[in-house]
Amino acid sequence: MIKTRVTEMLGIRFPLFQGGMAWIATGQLAGAVSSAGGLGIIGSGTADVQWLQREIEAARRLTEHPFGVNLVLTSPHIEENIALVIKEKIPVVTTGAGNPGKYLPLFRDQGIKVMPVVASVALARRLARLGADAIIAEGVESGGHVGEMTTMCLVPMIADVLDIPVIAAGGIADGRGMLAAFALGAEAVQMGTRFICAEECPAHPDYQQKVIKAKDRDTEVCGLTTLYPVRALRNSFVRYYLEQERAGADQEMLRKLGAGKYPEAALGGDIENGSILAGQVSGLVNRVEPAAAIVKDVMETAEALLLNRLGVEQWSE
Amino acid sequence: MIKTRVTEMLGIRFPLFQGGMAWIATGQLAGAVSSAGGLGIIGSGTADVQWLQREIEAARRLTEHPFGVNLVLTSPHIEENIALVIKEKIPVVTTGAGNPGKYLPLFRDQGIKVMPVVASVALARRLARLGADAIIAEGVESGGHVGEMTTMCLVPMIADVLDIPVIAAGGIADGRGMLAAFALGAEAVQMGTRFICAEECPAHPDYQQKVIKAKDRDTEVCGLTTLYPVRALRNSFVRYYLEQERAGADQEMLRKLGAGKYPEAALGGDIENGSILAGQVSGLVNRVEPAAAIVKDVMETAEALLLNRLGVEQWSE
Repeated sequence: MIKTRVTEMLGIRFPLFQGGMAWIATGQLAGAVSSAGGLGIIGSGTADVQWLQREIEAARRLTEHPFGVNLVLTSPHIEENIALVIKEKIPVVTTGAGNPGKYLPLFRDQGIKVMPVVASVALARRLARLGADAIIAEGVESGGHVGEMTTMCLVPMIADVLDIPVIAAGGIADGRGMLAAFALGAEAVQMGTRFICAEECPAHPDYQQKVIKAKDRDTEVCGLTTLYPVRALRNSFVRYYLEQERAGADQEMLRKLGAGKYPEAALGGDIENGSILAGQVSGLVNRVEPAAAIVKDVMETAEALLLNRLGVEQWSE
Repeated sequence: MIKTRVTEMLGIRFPLFQGGMAWIATGQLAGAVSSAGGLGIIGSGTADVQWLQREIEAARRLTEHPFGVNLVLTSPHIEENIALVIKEKIPVVTTGAGNPGKYLPLFRDQGIKVMPVVASVALARRLARLGADAIIAEGVESGGHVGEMTTMCLVPMIADVLDIPVIAAGGIADGRGMLAAFALGAEAVQMGTRFICAEECPAHPDYQQKVIKAKDRDTEVCGLTTLYPVRALRNSFVRYYLEQERAGADQEMLRKLGAGKYPEAALGGDIENGSILAGQVSGLVNRVEPAAAIVKDVMETAEALLLNRLGVEQWSE
């Protein structure tokens, strides 16, 4: 058993979070991950409060273990979604797309743990000062919104300046990645891409197959000239978007170009004209399997690697 | 003591390579690293055979332990430099900037180990088939020439498909990074940026101070539109280069813009108009110290972390 301040703080069995991916991290997926001993997280994305209510109920039907909700601070429904999270007594929220500072006192008063996803040391420091309970340090290799720093560099830099726990995200799909994150100073990991291929994930089967077939260099970062660059698997949409971006398309045009493209691929299955968000680590994902099998595989590999001292012959002096 | 197939193959005490950085990885630096138990590597870059001869002699005066030479395949002096490496019976070469395939039989006949630096699974596979002795998998966080894949993603993907050892490079500056690399499947690590700040490194003091002062997001990748993108610390030169590149400057103009800019900064100390190559991991480098102190710190941290099982409470069943 691997125990860290994160497993203790949340009362979960394993230091493994399932990323709160918009649209596809539903109650069904989050419930399955939590009942397997990880932390399932419902991705509220830009969905409205009815959607979130339904998914929280779905997760509760599947597990009595804690699960979280990811809140996207730029969502038009952010205020109602926060009110619902409080009403439903969700024990932990993760936040993306911005600085959740102004909501921290509110969550704290309600005893809700807040774990913001950050891509820089400066924002991690600021949010720790404002009372975040842990920081999710996410590297540029991750799928969806990305920063600049890689997980290998960002995690130790943030761990060095914070007293609160760091959770590593980006580039992690198995027990090797989990242990690498621990070596760097993390106390839990968050995996998104591998859970796209969980049986309980409503991602369209063609989206799951595209992730499974992906090789190392099959992702691109779109929107580097915008405020919200995203990593996706290369397809017709990505090629066209990058052409337009390199040709100097303006922010408004790029925003329109990308609008609605993710659900079009993720749920609708249009993997040529939609945006197939996924991390570089897609190259390590090779099958669709139950969420519980993913959690079991990651933890068994991590524990075995730890027991055999990462496979490097070693004796204490 | 940490032992792997790499320490055994080369007869070195620690699985720690010093990157063969052009101009600044001299015989003095390589000799100091090798005598401290790591593998020092002379960076021949585009230097001529007289320079390389002199540096090999300098390293030999400092150590009886093995050291290597990095060969840049695009160097105008590559053929004479290879002849010298053979004449001098250098035990191991690392190669950058291209595919060393055509030289592999020659080195093999001479009993010289060849360890190419690669940034993709496909090139790693090809070079392993052609007889490379190990593969240095280098992530995009590294300084100087970069690919696309991060170390966290590239190392396990390459380790999964090769039987020969993998050495991880990019984003590693301490014992935490070394153990993270081992968890991912590497059997040694290569560090460049931290050795820029070794006392024995002839990098200009202003270059070393720039690395030491760097924070997490202070590097940029220049030349993404060229065949050889490089990561450097942000300064006037980088800002100007990126402006020109984003404005659509052609390959020839960009080549001229970058020509000679590295030695200008690295040796000449013009840290505003020169190109200050360094990795994202600069944010973890905080002092100038002897190469032996760097090697000692990395290994002591790595061994302590391993003995205390990465700090995650754990008990075997």
